[in-house]
Amino acid sequence: MPVARVVVDVMLKPEILDPQGKAVQGALGRLGFEGVTSVRQGKRFEIELAGPATPEAVAEIERAASTLLANPVIEDFTIHVESGAEV
Amino acid sequence: MPVARVVVDVMLKPEILDPQGKAVQGALGRLGFEGVTSVRQGKRFEIELAGPATPEAVAEIERAASTLLANPVIEDFTIHVESGAEV
Repeated sequence: MPVARVVVDVMLKPEILDPQGKAVQGALGRLGFEGVTSVRQGKRFEIELAGPATPEAVAEIERAASTLLANPVIEDFTIHVESGAEV
Repeated sequence: MPVARVVVDVMLKPEILDPQGKAVQGALGRLGFEGVTSVRQGKRFEIELAGPATPEAVAEIERAASTLLANPVIEDFTIHVESGAEV
């Protein structure tokens, strides 16, 4: 039975200020890196499942993402199956 | 001139303990999400460039990632161009 890896990326919504990203952008400028117009920082979760990434398992991860991993009021998340997909 | 978006994913190296990921894994179990064998948490940076993602610009981002965004002693990073690639 293939073991699946699912990745959940959580980013602040575009309309929410991201001071952490701004700080990184400022630091890049001070270090001499040119040509960066925007930096936004988010979280990445790599989740390994005991079984294959069935549609039910992915739906479970989606539910977990919206209840625990992300705050849907201020954050968006995307889910993608990196390996072990089974449709 | 196309504007490029480059994504840098920073994850702890596999051999480094990830207490933050472990905490998320424990919380998932307590919330009733079954079948998760491992969670690792990392950072995701979405970087917008003033110009196209030329090989030189991507090399600059790679230098920035290894000096500022990631700590190469304990973290690995991957870079991928999401839009505006120009090879």
